[in-house]
Amino acid sequence: MDPESFRQIGHQLIDYIADYRLKVANLPVMAQAEPGAIRAQLPGTPPESPETFDAIFQDLDKVIVPGLSHWQHPNFFGYFPSNAILSSVLGDYLSTGLGVLGLSWQSSPALSELEEVTTDWMRQMVGLSENWSGVIQDTASTSTLVALMCARERTTNFSLARGGLQSEERPLIVYASTQSHSSVDKAALLAGFGRANVRLIPTDERYAIRPEALAAAIEEDIRNGLTPCAVVATVGTTATTALDPVEAIAKVARKHNLWLHVDTAMAGSAMILPECRWMWQGIEEADSLVINAHKWLGVAFDCSLYYVRDPQHLVRVMGTNPSFLQSAVDDKVKNLRDWGIPLGRRFRALKLWCLIREQGVTGLQDRLRRDMSNANWLAKQIEATPKWRILAPVSLQTLCVRHEPDGLNGPELDKHTQAWAARANASGHAYLTPATLDNQWMVRISIGAVPTEREHVAALWELLQRVVKE
Amino acid sequence: MDPESFRQIGHQLIDYIADYRLKVANLPVMAQAEPGAIRAQLPGTPPESPETFDAIFQDLDKVIVPGLSHWQHPNFFGYFPSNAILSSVLGDYLSTGLGVLGLSWQSSPALSELEEVTTDWMRQMVGLSENWSGVIQDTASTSTLVALMCARERTTNFSLARGGLQSEERPLIVYASTQSHSSVDKAALLAGFGRANVRLIPTDERYAIRPEALAAAIEEDIRNGLTPCAVVATVGTTATTALDPVEAIAKVARKHNLWLHVDTAMAGSAMILPECRWMWQGIEEADSLVINAHKWLGVAFDCSLYYVRDPQHLVRVMGTNPSFLQSAVDDKVKNLRDWGIPLGRRFRALKLWCLIREQGVTGLQDRLRRDMSNANWLAKQIEATPKWRILAPVSLQTLCVRHEPDGLNGPELDKHTQAWAARANASGHAYLTPATLDNQWMVRISIGAVPTEREHVAALWELLQRVVKE
Ligand SMILES: Cc1ncc(COP(=O)(O)O)c(C=O)c1O
Ligand SMILES: Cc1ncc(COP(=O)(O)O)c(C=O)c1O
Repeated sequence: MDPESFRQIGHQLIDYIADYRLKVANLPVMAQAEPGAIRAQLPGTPPESPETFDAIFQDLDKVIVPGLSHWQHPNFFGYFPSNAILSSVLGDYLSTGLGVLGLSWQSSPALSELEEVTTDWMRQMVGLSENWSGVIQDTASTSTLVALMCARERTTNFSLARGGLQSEERPLIVYASTQSHSSVDKAALLAGFGRANVRLIPTDERYAIRPEALAAAIEEDIRNGLTPCAVVATVGTTATTALDPVEAIAKVARKHNLWLHVDTAMAGSAMILPECRWMWQGIEEADSLVINAHKWLGVAFDCSLYYVRDPQHLVRVMGTNPSFLQSAVDDKVKNLRDWGIPLGRRFRALKLWCLIREQGVTGLQDRLRRDMSNANWLAKQIEATPKWRILAPVSLQTLCVRHEPDGLNGPELDKHTQAWAARANASGHAYLTPATLDNQWMVRISIGAVPTEREHVAALWELLQRVVKE
Repeated sequence: MDPESFRQIGHQLIDYIADYRLKVANLPVMAQAEPGAIRAQLPGTPPESPETFDAIFQDLDKVIVPGLSHWQHPNFFGYFPSNAILSSVLGDYLSTGLGVLGLSWQSSPALSELEEVTTDWMRQMVGLSENWSGVIQDTASTSTLVALMCARERTTNFSLARGGLQSEERPLIVYASTQSHSSVDKAALLAGFGRANVRLIPTDERYAIRPEALAAAIEEDIRNGLTPCAVVATVGTTATTALDPVEAIAKVARKHNLWLHVDTAMAGSAMILPECRWMWQGIEEADSLVINAHKWLGVAFDCSLYYVRDPQHLVRVMGTNPSFLQSAVDDKVKNLRDWGIPLGRRFRALKLWCLIREQGVTGLQDRLRRDMSNANWLAKQIEATPKWRILAPVSLQTLCVRHEPDGLNGPELDKHTQAWAARANASGHAYLTPATLDNQWMVRISIGAVPTEREHVAALWELLQRVVKE
């Protein structure tokens, strides 16, 4: 495709996306597709000869868009907000269009340096000290994996340079809470720790980790000849946005020389609000943390900000230096390939840069405050309504709710919960995520899609009151 | 940013990228920036209030674009081609603009199913049997890490479900060639094997692994009570595009029950040409392989195709199943989060789909044939010229060359090589990557940027003959 055809079809595409964003509110928010139905509508073999983009646009309308669940929909209350604000979309368009690749600083200097600048802007925006250095990873899952690998190598004084985890005498242990994200457990397993060496510590009535239980577990492991290695604290857990007490955890971690990684994938965005920073009190004592700028903040996926206090350690764990990547300026620059797993890197900083500039810090703050106030409003309605319960503190924008008709409990109550959630989702008017809490199903309402205003939250509340009775 | 502003600025942006692609040939191909120079031109603190996109476009012209090395330039001969063909750019624009996220099949069914369809198209295009299932990862580095984790878990019969690598008695060993990519070594270290357990097997005069040396190393390890686990074969090594003999390696791997992963990050694209498929003869015997569709083939970075023969094993290693990701159809669908490390996933299949449809298989084949013929032509010129040497077989589109004036050798020759390569790069008329081969510096000429025609290759050859004399 030559630049002039790109120009022509590109204009069409911009209109297509603008129109999509305008009309998305009228589409069913959760995809109504049957398994395999989309695949069945597409040719099983690739085309030998070129096709036109008109054919592609037709398939988009006929097959692809009807097969989407719409994350940018005002009635999207599922999972968590994954906002792709249109200014950050444009930043990503720049990145893909310029088509440059970060392998080393030299392979595109602006790619590295804008990443330094924008991750440092975000550092300031969330109120972290200058002791932190940031890099963009794809996801929190990867960031947490990197953190646990770094922890493993710190505790073993670089076992990877010797026999790896295979040469260690006493197993290393990783700690997190029972409410931590599945990616924490997955990271520990992939990093080679083994399930037997992952301790999920119980939480309190607010679903936050109990630091004395953590301390007790660590001490017991030490007594048994094991080696505590890392603890992952979560600020804003997935189910309920619970807040693990970072300060208390840091004290325990420091005492026993554990790596402290803080998973603020979700709640990190809220740290741009000074009034929320108490939520991660003690954060300066951590070794690493992750904030998903691709969630509530609004950067088009993927843009996970990983901050560390000791970048040299990170580079020692992740670094490679083959001849073809060397350049004369290597001692004066950051080679960000050594800050993560992949070699090749996209110019992701552009989408973060465009978002922050187009919104301004105050613009971002205003929207997050709007969402928290909407969540608060809804919590008040629900609390005031008989048979409805809010199951966990609403610290940010997520509500965990259950409708509990008299006499229903256990499996019966679960059936009721899953049935009305399915009805709500099937209605096309809302997308909600059921999940378990204390072994009982409940429904999460995650507020914070960009187009979601109070009226949408009010309409959701009407809908819920209807579907529980159907 | 509302959809109407997006429409307006989006049109500007499309023109910006079209114009960039038209004028890129006139820019110096390698960035001429000094370390820190780009950062110094940008504000150190984020803007409190919104800025206009005009200001962003100005900074792009003044600061960002002059700070790029231009991978889409006709005189880009560095590293490897990382083509972002404009139809795949549009596919990526669709993905970012729609802003949907893959967590589970249900979170956007079309995202999963189009990935199944397009990776299966590519499977057919490269001539793999139906025994392979594909998934899109970000990079080959990640794909190879996933492969080695899967190998580790197969050999240990799922040590991750027990004590991890920490519980294993006899160290597991990984094999690759001395010419394998740095990402292989990195993956083995990150997966916890340890440097002492990575064997880099010597290569023959064509820089391909010597299978008898591999067999000997494995047998020696077994005699020493160690456990051979995985071998990574490379088809198209980074330095010289050497071809490890997959068939012979597979025989050794099968005999000792090793996982065979084939890194065809670079050469995999060429397998769409039936006349090239002898290069990976024996591929059906492998357990996993990776093809970087974001290299020569032309999909905008990142799009690394990872194929496995046993997806159930992959899912058992990578899978998680928290309540909030469960849905009623889980037994009928693929949840691609369980096929890799990250939870959240972009709609990457769109860019692969748009590329294949817009180019057609024949369009892609024609271009790759053009590039190989250009590489052959240049090889002939160089071979016919006194004092110039081609150092390795030109199997695809990469040439390894040295200019060897009489009497120069050792460090003196290295100095000469690095000096003329630096002069060529500083000229702005070419971007070349120096690298070492047999402990001596040489220069790689990697042909295959989309706009590179015979005339650019001829001009490069003129330039090289000039710069060696300066
Ligand atoms: C607390 C927490 N950690 C980690 C993740 C995983 O995020 P990602 O998809 O970026 O890996 C999520 C969200 O899915 C999350 O809420
Ligand atoms: C043979 C080979 N393997 C792996 C890689 C790494 O690729 P990626 O940047 O996708 O990790 C490359 C190229 O850089 C390569 O040539």
